[in-house]
Amino acid sequence: MSPSTGALITIEGLDGAGKTTLAVALEAALADRGIEVVRLREPGGVVLSERIRALVADPRLEVDPRAEALLFAAARAQLCAERLRPLLAAGRWILLDRFVDSSLAYQGGGRELGIDAVAAINDLATAGCRPDRTLLLRLDPAAGRARLMGRGEEQDRMEREREPFFARVAAAYDALAAAEPERFRVLDAGAAPDAVLAAALAGIDDLLSSPEAGPPAG
Amino acid sequence: MSPSTGALITIEGLDGAGKTTLAVALEAALADRGIEVVRLREPGGVVLSERIRALVADPRLEVDPRAEALLFAAARAQLCAERLRPLLAAGRWILLDRFVDSSLAYQGGGRELGIDAVAAINDLATAGCRPDRTLLLRLDPAAGRARLMGRGEEQDRMEREREPFFARVAAAYDALAAAEPERFRVLDAGAAPDAVLAAALAGIDDLLSSPEAGPPAG
Ligand SMILES: Nc1ncnc2c1ncn2[C@@H]1O[C@H](COP(=O)(O)OP(=O)(O)OP(=O)(O)O)[C@@H](O)[C@H]1O
Ligand SMILES: Nc1ncnc2c1ncn2[C@@H]1O[C@H](COP(=O)(O)OP(=O)(O)OP(=O)(O)O)[C@@H](O)[C@H]1O
Ligand SMILES: [Mg+2]
Ligand SMILES: [Mg+2]
Repeated sequence: MSPSTGALITIEGLDGAGKTTLAVALEAALADRGIEVVRLREPGGVVLSERIRALVADPRLEVDPRAEALLFAAARAQLCAERLRPLLAAGRWILLDRFVDSSLAYQGGGRELGIDAVAAINDLATAGCRPDRTLLLRLDPAAGRARLMGRGEEQDRMEREREPFFARVAAAYDALAAAEPERFRVLDAGAAPDAVLAAALAGIDDLLSSPEAGPPAG
Repeated sequence: MSPSTGALITIEGLDGAGKTTLAVALEAALADRGIEVVRLREPGGVVLSERIRALVADPRLEVDPRAEALLFAAARAQLCAERLRPLLAAGRWILLDRFVDSSLAYQGGGRELGIDAVAAINDLATAGCRPDRTLLLRLDPAAGRARLMGRGEEQDRMEREREPFFARVAAAYDALAAAEPERFRVLDAGAAPDAVLAAALAGIDDLLSSPEAGPPAG
């Protein structure tokens, strides 16, 4: 196998922080620079993972917090095996909307299972498939909730949680970013979309210009 | 909460070893002795767990070994939370057809993820819900296969595995029993059903006669 020249960039943050908005804008901005990325969000179009996520999101099902953490990890294991690892081995760049840090923050922090316990099961799940960079969209929990209300969609089981839950998730994200400053870049998600995009581009600049960066597409 | 007087007895062994046959016979034999047990087999009638096990068994789905191990653990976490823990807290006796040791043997040994790695995720899943006694039906893998063929049902994804897989599962079961002689009783599953039942009763005799044993039913 030839050495990989690809990179895995993950986007993290609370519900409504603007992850998907940023992912779409970042994909376009990178394409303008001649860098073709594969944009994914968990469960990433992987059949088993989609079936698993449907279980977790179903508001009619009773789901124990430990079962929830294990189900997210299972979906992620399949995504890694079926999609991420092959793409990275082929030297592709991946922009991924949520990954392991979401479980550490939501199940480890929000559900209070503990970050270390949830990290252990995700280590088994990902088997060394780790982000090269993680962009954390940092937002006041209340602001994120307000944005989601504006979106007017039906809420899933996770989004129906109450404020103390999201405060714990936000605190866990902050702790993760502080513990791994090399991997994380913390962006102010309260800024206008253009400013968030500019900060994100600055946050991955070293990856783009490194000798590891792939050749321009086309 | 009052101290539990119940017990969790698990039955383990290769496909076709005679677990279900023994569980049915043991339930009847204990009822004759005035002991009412709850007989369950994973996924134990728990809705989420049943939905999860359907995914794992589906021969059309691509399931990575790590995802498989995590899915079994998730189903088990829900069973513990929704059923086993409440029953044990109410002082009930449970006879359970397959539990954590099945994952240690099948995913840890058979799929070669390693017993320790699979034990770690199951520790998170069960959160201290542990068998008081485990009856291991020890059988030559080939003999188990022959019995299953005789049963003439369609095989699920796990049962379609080949001989070296089942040899690894059998070796893992032996290693688990050797590592925890207090918890395990190893029974010769090649014996006639009556002899297996008698050995099983002998293997739980200390639990039945201990001061912890629950009052006779009725
Ligand atoms: N920087 C921004 N400023 C103001 N509004 C924004 C910004 N970014 C996104 N929004 C709006 O906030 C809402 C949530 O954005 P988006 O769906 O991108 O968030 P998300 O983090 O992907 O949410 P989820 O976790 O639910 O997927 C949308 O209506 C979006 O248009
Ligand atoms: N002691 C025994 N001697 C001979 N045949 C047996 C014995 N116990 C069970 N059988 C037969 O072997 C077959 C498998 O038994 P059983 O279904 O109880 O196994 P199992 O361990 O529950 O299998 P599975 O793992 O597939 O659930 C059945 O046809 C059963 O009647
Ligand atoms: Mg989104
Ligand atoms: Mg059976």
